[in-house]
Amino acid sequence: MTDHLYSVIMAGGIGSRLWPRSRAARPKQFLDLIGSCTMLQETAARIEPLIPLERVLIVVGKEHADTVHAQLPDLPIENILVEPGPRGTAPCVGLAAVALLARDPQATMAVFPADHLIADEVSFRQAIAAAHKLAQDGYLVTLGISPSHAHTGYGYIQGGTPLGKVGDLPAFEVQRFTEKPDAETAGRFLQDGGYYWNGGIFIWQASTILDEMASLLPHLSTELEQLGRVWNSEARAETLAAAWERVPQTTIDYGIMEKSSRVAVIPIDVGWDDVGNWSTLSELVPTDQTQNSTHGPGHPLLIDTRNSYVYASSGKLVTTIGLEDVVVIDTPDALLICRKDRAQDVREVVEQLKAKGWEQYL
Amino acid sequence: MTDHLYSVIMAGGIGSRLWPRSRAARPKQFLDLIGSCTMLQETAARIEPLIPLERVLIVVGKEHADTVHAQLPDLPIENILVEPGPRGTAPCVGLAAVALLARDPQATMAVFPADHLIADEVSFRQAIAAAHKLAQDGYLVTLGISPSHAHTGYGYIQGGTPLGKVGDLPAFEVQRFTEKPDAETAGRFLQDGGYYWNGGIFIWQASTILDEMASLLPHLSTELEQLGRVWNSEARAETLAAAWERVPQTTIDYGIMEKSSRVAVIPIDVGWDDVGNWSTLSELVPTDQTQNSTHGPGHPLLIDTRNSYVYASSGKLVTTIGLEDVVVIDTPDALLICRKDRAQDVREVVEQLKAKGWEQYL
Repeated sequence: MTDHLYSVIMAGGIGSRLWPRSRAARPKQFLDLIGSCTMLQETAARIEPLIPLERVLIVVGKEHADTVHAQLPDLPIENILVEPGPRGTAPCVGLAAVALLARDPQATMAVFPADHLIADEVSFRQAIAAAHKLAQDGYLVTLGISPSHAHTGYGYIQGGTPLGKVGDLPAFEVQRFTEKPDAETAGRFLQDGGYYWNGGIFIWQASTILDEMASLLPHLSTELEQLGRVWNSEARAETLAAAWERVPQTTIDYGIMEKSSRVAVIPIDVGWDDVGNWSTLSELVPTDQTQNSTHGPGHPLLIDTRNSYVYASSGKLVTTIGLEDVVVIDTPDALLICRKDRAQDVREVVEQLKAKGWEQYL
Repeated sequence: MTDHLYSVIMAGGIGSRLWPRSRAARPKQFLDLIGSCTMLQETAARIEPLIPLERVLIVVGKEHADTVHAQLPDLPIENILVEPGPRGTAPCVGLAAVALLARDPQATMAVFPADHLIADEVSFRQAIAAAHKLAQDGYLVTLGISPSHAHTGYGYIQGGTPLGKVGDLPAFEVQRFTEKPDAETAGRFLQDGGYYWNGGIFIWQASTILDEMASLLPHLSTELEQLGRVWNSEARAETLAAAWERVPQTTIDYGIMEKSSRVAVIPIDVGWDDVGNWSTLSELVPTDQTQNSTHGPGHPLLIDTRNSYVYASSGKLVTTIGLEDVVVIDTPDALLICRKDRAQDVREVVEQLKAKGWEQYL
């Protein structure tokens, strides 16, 4: 039974490597990067057969609360949890746990980033259901993504003692969380097996994670306890704002998962992708016979161009001649032309824009 | 004395290889491609010490007459000669000759394309003055551009019998006009010497060119004679319109220069350039230490980019990462990204746009 299973979608990211479509005013998770739905809508829709919208909580900054409401109009308005400011994933998860406990002392929460892609949604939901069972035993469960290659951009989870099958799926205690490894280490992980990418998908009882925060993140825990006491009163907003002035910036990975001894992993192989940059995105969309793909409401006209990704904004004609392996993203006020193998460096553009004070392009 | 020397600037081109800045509504000659003046303004300004604006005639299609007036507000309005439609350079020149003869029976006309660049204006004016003298002897004088390399995109003029020095400059009877040669022929021309590029700059008496048209282009001549008879009457516009319905499409090169026996050439070496495409244009502008040049009212941000030319339209941020040898032209409704060695193929884009009926981008 999943009546007490809630979904917590963390929608606070900025997706700077998908600039200039991903912008401060409309980050990656609110864009229709792949299909006709936005990534937030996809995230909510893929779990809906298991967790209806009434039990979906979205944690978001105040500048994007309206966007969430616009993109998920059937989501109860009180399910939009507005964070006073970004403090990393640990306070974000803690806030959601407090909100859920106040509503349902038996709440189990499945935490999802709002900007990932899952190809095999059926298997994904099976894994969530299995993780939900395991969470009832007090585990902090994470879904471990079976690595397809020695990626150095993700954290890795090493599986340990088997916990037997949960549903039809094997589960393991977690031996170790490793931050982004170097290429050699990543290669060894892949060769050794039993290592999984950390996709930031977690399932646990709200009470379990708050207990664990009490031991591992006492400063945060103190603030959360205070917040829990006033949650159903008029003091909520003020207490939250004051707490968020004090809580230290921490990620759930570093603050809890790397240190806790109650962590379990369920490996999944469901066509997961974090759509990390324009190059990886370009591999997720259909291409024509010249390996090009064109997107957006504008007009593309590609001449002798190969293996390229072109986004044309409304009314715009985007023409390329003689290009190969490039990404072209044209928005009304900002244009990016980037060699695919440099797609990670788009983040550098955003850094430079900040340094220059060109806020209007962020 | 140059009191009877007039300038005729042919401003009817379309400059399709400089798309998308050069557009049907505002072709190349009306753009500030190099400096802060438009090419038309530059063309008028560089001869002004020799030929003041009162003796400058601009031949232009009716759709751009207002643009000429706006860009040269001091030009007497009656000096804008509106051609009913494009019929090639021979009718255009003939029309100007008729207009000038009606005004000044002793008129000599110096004919210039409106969209070329001259670095050494002093030497250029000296050549025009010399050509003016030679034209008084009944020659059709052309300025022959000393070739810097074996270009296959220009016509070539072969010098013949020397005519001695005119002013300080040597002049020759013309042996032969050759249309755009193949690479081998162009190479031989360069090696042999005595061949010059045809830059479309001509100096002759208005009466001489009309005489020559009478023998070599009789159909055109008949129309021009009729037009000359009514020029100073109310029938001018109607006669011109009717004549332009009948005159055959002909260039001055093919119709007159290749066939006449009265052609002379004065070689010049004045830093001439026809700014033929984005690649040649990129070599005419200053570059930074990474051989990039950025233009336009927008903001460029080039990261690890080399030997590239970037135009950013108003308010637009144009960002490139890891590019080399490319041209980026971003206008409000059309964007071109082209490898420099494919710059000639921009014309193909324009052809494709016509074929698709995408008139709004032409």
